Amino acid sequence: MKIETLKWYGSVDGYLELTDQRKLPAQYVKIKCHTVTQVFDAIKTLAVRGAPAIGVAAAYGVVIGLKDSDANDISAYSEKLNQTCDHLAQSRPTAVNLFWALDRMKKAAKDYPGNPADLPAHLLTEAHAIYSEDRQMCQNIGANGQHFITEGAGVLTHCNAGALATAGDGTALALMFAAHRKGKHFRVWADETRPLLQGARLTAWELQTAGIDVTLICDNMAGWLMRQGKIDCVITGADRIAANGDSANKIGTYSLSVLAKAHGIKFYIAAPSSTFDLSIKNGDLIPIEERKPDEVRGFADTCWVPPDVKVWNPAFDVVPAENITAIITEKGVIDQISAKKIAEHLK
Amino acid sequence: MKIETLKWYGSVDGYLELTDQRKLPAQYVKIKCHTVTQVFDAIKTLAVRGAPAIGVAAAYGVVIGLKDSDANDISAYSEKLNQTCDHLAQSRPTAVNLFWALDRMKKAAKDYPGNPADLPAHLLTEAHAIYSEDRQMCQNIGANGQHFITEGAGVLTHCNAGALATAGDGTALALMFAAHRKGKHFRVWADETRPLLQGARLTAWELQTAGIDVTLICDNMAGWLMRQGKIDCVITGADRIAANGDSANKIGTYSLSVLAKAHGIKFYIAAPSSTFDLSIKNGDLIPIEERKPDEVRGFADTCWVPPDVKVWNPAFDVVPAENITAIITEKGVIDQISAKKIAEHLK
Repeated sequence: MKIETLKWYGSVDGYLELTDQRKLPAQYVKIKCHTVTQVFDAIKTLAVRGAPAIGVAAAYGVVIGLKDSDANDISAYSEKLNQTCDHLAQSRPTAVNLFWALDRMKKAAKDYPGNPADLPAHLLTEAHAIYSEDRQMCQNIGANGQHFITEGAGVLTHCNAGALATAGDGTALALMFAAHRKGKHFRVWADETRPLLQGARLTAWELQTAGIDVTLICDNMAGWLMRQGKIDCVITGADRIAANGDSANKIGTYSLSVLAKAHGIKFYIAAPSSTFDLSIKNGDLIPIEERKPDEVRGFADTCWVPPDVKVWNPAFDVVPAENITAIITEKGVIDQISAKKIAEHLK
Repeated sequence: MKIETLKWYGSVDGYLELTDQRKLPAQYVKIKCHTVTQVFDAIKTLAVRGAPAIGVAAAYGVVIGLKDSDANDISAYSEKLNQTCDHLAQSRPTAVNLFWALDRMKKAAKDYPGNPADLPAHLLTEAHAIYSEDRQMCQNIGANGQHFITEGAGVLTHCNAGALATAGDGTALALMFAAHRKGKHFRVWADETRPLLQGARLTAWELQTAGIDVTLICDNMAGWLMRQGKIDCVITGADRIAANGDSANKIGTYSLSVLAKAHGIKFYIAAPSSTFDLSIKNGDLIPIEERKPDEVRGFADTCWVPPDVKVWNPAFDVVPAENITAIITEKGVIDQISAKKIAEHLK
């Protein structure tokens, strides 16, 4: 089965179709987005999630924002474009790929020399380029990092950095898909990733669908699993990487990095170069989204606690660069991470 | 509201009433156990859970096993007693208090000099003694350890080592109840404790009911919370402590101990002296219960993963003695833990 996370249908008057990840794995349902509000809500409510996929969805959201515009000169288009980008930028605060994609769309509009009426079509071409590059980026990340998964290895991953998080094969999971295609045998352990269970619902399903040996655990079992000697490396994605290499990712990744270090286990991050935010010096400055308490009070419509109990629900945390063995991007591998090496890598 | 975890009603022909902890906090429902099978099932399915409470329930289970016996001489009683104890010992493998309580009941029977027909009444007296001692033990643990919770402290706990885990005030939570009664202000962070959510369902409810400031988190947030400087100490219970101080407790406790060490945070275990198993040299020898995969695949009747996905579900893990700042028992405090100090403490 081919997983199609998001895809544009039609010409500039078309629509964005998303796999509704809130319903997986029980239902494989698609959502059609014809308005910016629908795209915004899909990102906000995690129907589409994963830093690269959010970026691609937002790029198409910009096209949708312009197609219904009654703008007829460049300044009216420009105003509408800025409004749309400002709105979509509010959907989620941590993943930098969102802002990166919006900036790229704004730049494409600004640099466009043609007829204002053709701007939407031009921006659709740009969004398609972001989509295609994202797919290629996944392939390259997989190729660049698959050698870290050795024959017989035990690999731990957290949340979902798979096909469902991108337009292509994923980031962390791209390494696994690439190693699997090379015929290597290895065992993946997937953290369930409370509160929204992306590991249980999405990663376990994706890997199982691909025929990769996957075992699901609760998040609190990871340390004990490492202690049993079952894990050779941890591989996760990232939502934003600061100039010094500090990497924001799904809540729980920080704990894993500390546990990996304590057990002498390698810790890899796989992410496209668009995940780097060189404007941010270190991880302390990355804004961390806090989500609704009800996500922790239960799951879906079930509440299993006293309904007024206080909750802390940060959606992300930050792995300090010193806990990361290497970062794998579509350009290659950064090890012995430093601001200097990162700057050189991104040149 | 007074929480009554378990209580015997009537004379030797009476029954054991348990709070059904599988239903909390949505429903506060009681179960009446009139047969050994009912007691066995209640322990096995976690209607009653928590190492000390399991011990007390098993002691009453022995009484129930004899009351319907048609034994009329001491050897027939003895055979029935051994059968009952052997059966109850199969209910859960990790908590040593279960075996401790069964051994104590067997010893009480063996040492009983009176009329065989009066043995059940004698054993009921012994079970009542275990119950009362458990309540007193909780009081003493609270008194011995409450000074570790200082004014304004942030305290992290895991699973439920509260009133619901004992016949009295609990073990880890007894420190909090005692500190609260002394008028100290502090903030407790409760790990939800997947897969069975004893932290979310039981600890959050118990502490909130007692008027103690409690905030619920997902298990994978604990490390990030420590990194924020919010935690001064971790306090948990234990299910079995080896001669060298290695301590088995709910899965996830090992990770917390490693994270606490990495952040320079104190890590306390509160448990009655009956939790020590001096026959076991170190934690590697403690049997770890593995429970059904379906517990990890969802919660209650909800399954949120591909239903055939592989699962690892150890119910406990072991905290190495070197990660433990101190163990608090009803007898006092053991710090700078060693086999010698433990042996002296238990004398």
